[in-house]
Amino acid sequence: MVLASINPNFALLPGSYLFAAVAKKTADYKAAHPDKKVISLGIGDVTRPLPQSVIEALRSAVDDMAHEDTFRGYGPYEGYDFLREKIAQEDYVSRGANISADEIFISDGAKSDCGNIGDIFSADNVVAVCDPVYPVYVDTNAMAGRAGVYDNAREKWTKLVYMPCTRETNFIPEIPKEHCDLIYLCFPNNPMGTMIDAPTLKKWVDYARSEGAVIFYDAAYEAYITEDLPHSIYEIEGARECAVEFRSFSKNAGFTGTRCAFCVIPHSLKVNGSSLNEMWMRRQATKFNGVPYIIQRGAEAVYSPQGRLETKALVAYFLNNAKIIRDGLSEAGFEAYGGVNAPYIWLKTKGGQSSWEFFDSLLEKAGVVGTPGSGFGPSGEGYFRLTAFGSESTTREAIKRITEAF
Amino acid sequence: MVLASINPNFALLPGSYLFAAVAKKTADYKAAHPDKKVISLGIGDVTRPLPQSVIEALRSAVDDMAHEDTFRGYGPYEGYDFLREKIAQEDYVSRGANISADEIFISDGAKSDCGNIGDIFSADNVVAVCDPVYPVYVDTNAMAGRAGVYDNAREKWTKLVYMPCTRETNFIPEIPKEHCDLIYLCFPNNPMGTMIDAPTLKKWVDYARSEGAVIFYDAAYEAYITEDLPHSIYEIEGARECAVEFRSFSKNAGFTGTRCAFCVIPHSLKVNGSSLNEMWMRRQATKFNGVPYIIQRGAEAVYSPQGRLETKALVAYFLNNAKIIRDGLSEAGFEAYGGVNAPYIWLKTKGGQSSWEFFDSLLEKAGVVGTPGSGFGPSGEGYFRLTAFGSESTTREAIKRITEAF
Repeated sequence: MVLASINPNFALLPGSYLFAAVAKKTADYKAAHPDKKVISLGIGDVTRPLPQSVIEALRSAVDDMAHEDTFRGYGPYEGYDFLREKIAQEDYVSRGANISADEIFISDGAKSDCGNIGDIFSADNVVAVCDPVYPVYVDTNAMAGRAGVYDNAREKWTKLVYMPCTRETNFIPEIPKEHCDLIYLCFPNNPMGTMIDAPTLKKWVDYARSEGAVIFYDAAYEAYITEDLPHSIYEIEGARECAVEFRSFSKNAGFTGTRCAFCVIPHSLKVNGSSLNEMWMRRQATKFNGVPYIIQRGAEAVYSPQGRLETKALVAYFLNNAKIIRDGLSEAGFEAYGGVNAPYIWLKTKGGQSSWEFFDSLLEKAGVVGTPGSGFGPSGEGYFRLTAFGSESTTREAIKRITEAF
Repeated sequence: MVLASINPNFALLPGSYLFAAVAKKTADYKAAHPDKKVISLGIGDVTRPLPQSVIEALRSAVDDMAHEDTFRGYGPYEGYDFLREKIAQEDYVSRGANISADEIFISDGAKSDCGNIGDIFSADNVVAVCDPVYPVYVDTNAMAGRAGVYDNAREKWTKLVYMPCTRETNFIPEIPKEHCDLIYLCFPNNPMGTMIDAPTLKKWVDYARSEGAVIFYDAAYEAYITEDLPHSIYEIEGARECAVEFRSFSKNAGFTGTRCAFCVIPHSLKVNGSSLNEMWMRRQATKFNGVPYIIQRGAEAVYSPQGRLETKALVAYFLNNAKIIRDGLSEAGFEAYGGVNAPYIWLKTKGGQSSWEFFDSLLEKAGVVGTPGSGFGPSGEGYFRLTAFGSESTTREAIKRITEAF
């Protein structure tokens, strides 16, 4: 008998998703120590209420749905113009980046976009990722058959090009020596908390254009940039011809449970003569029906004068946590990176401890949960990620415990 | 120079999406006749405000997001248990279908689920679709390389198995003679408005099990069933071993712009020993971050006693429109099908008019927009779809115009 067949690439995916493994170890510890209060600086989830301007916009949009004359049915697949126009103006044009509303696609999350964008590319593209890296880039390409097979000994997929980011490279990838077709860059970086400057980013744009490659630029943490550095890849000349950008309301406005994001695909971005903007529009029209009207109204409020003040304050709150963590770690004798233009701190373990050994000792000695660097890729071994998304008081408490324990 | 390459299957997609073509013709007509009031009974979009119980739940959930102690960040990829448990109990267990909460995955739309489910299957499965059919099933498989190439002369994809649904088959597909791996069934049917009975559905389940095939059962219009017919495929013995079911809040509770749906993948559904439930969980965890908390609370309210009364009234309102359309068409001498267990009416054009010819004459003579049957597949030629989702007054006005014009 002939049978239906599954996508064989799923069977190649190793073990459990990083954060699931962290969650399990944490749950086991809590079960064994019901008296101890565990503090998580692990997952990148926000903890503050939504800004008041967003709340008011959500309420007003709920009211719209209660009356026939303001009720909204199916919206545009690509998102409402009221939101796309604000984004184009406030996030791009105002920074000198030439992006128009019809180059913006509203979505339910940067993770969805990063995962789904592969739909419009063939399976034989050569994919380059930073090492360490946000696991979604790797896993979604593995599912699509672009990663080859997982080599357990090397802890790498056979077909991916890994770009090591270490102390020696200032945690910024170097331009690959081999040809690459699709290149994932994330700045401010998750997990390392580092940032790229404009001249270095220009080199990537030039490389991509000379190779006929496409850069997937994940700028989900853009709001955390405090120094004079590019917020968008489209601030770089030539990027409109080679880059897709991903953004999110998760980390600037606390939307992790509210779900709104967007990607930018310029009209001038073509691959073999095909417009990626048109292909993505076709993909979204066929497989997606847009983000809830209510939620898009909430996102729109982020761009109001009040919304800008409130989201700025929210980001400042988390950046203050980042400073507390970074300063505390330095005092405790750790090398610590990031945390200045990003909500992530990337610390080097002491005495050659592995990432998971440090995870265990941090949990045992301080009751603090973080994320092992090796979970983000082999070059993350010996490093550890802490996030600034807790409350200020628990963050201070966590750092106090770490300082005492180590 | 080697270049990034696009998914070649996108280039195979013919012309524009059906509803885009309808929208363009309608816009052209309106521009040429600015004085005429055009009534659309075309796209399947709802027009009534959300039920009051849903509005209240949405308001309360917005309030939750405004306070630190009730704020929600990332939710479960598969949806909140508060909603999954209600669905399992109210939509399944209460009808004798043995489905548990952990077999339910909350999503942003049945269209997304129908499109994305292909991710977990290989490209070489043989796909069977009804003819006529909801275009999303065809287009998403074409994008994934399962449809072959489009044969313009036959108006069919070379690798798809088409199951004709005509007057002769009572608009129900017959079991294919060839082997199929993935079979899309939609009942109540879009576009034909017809329903399947339990003994006939049992034959499909038996066929799928004997062939090692998987049925994708789209039950998005389940709430419109008025006769004693199965609401879920899991009311049929053996379906837990061969079927995935798609449901939505779009048409029972007016969520087309609010976006919430779900799919059901039983634990006992395995393909070559692999659990589709586990594969889908992995897919969702990697490419999706769940539906907004606020929206899931709104969907939960559909299952409250008040919500059930309100959604029942909403469905009754649209079913009354369906009766108005069907009765009016019969009076005007049209053969009309559907509309009893579905919000769609499927009419036969008179005098051998083609579907698009009827579209044009309906628009010209009556100022009414519908959807040409041929847009849903070659066996839809000579048929036409009208939807019951308008207001009662515009529906009556549309039927008055049709009766006078034809």
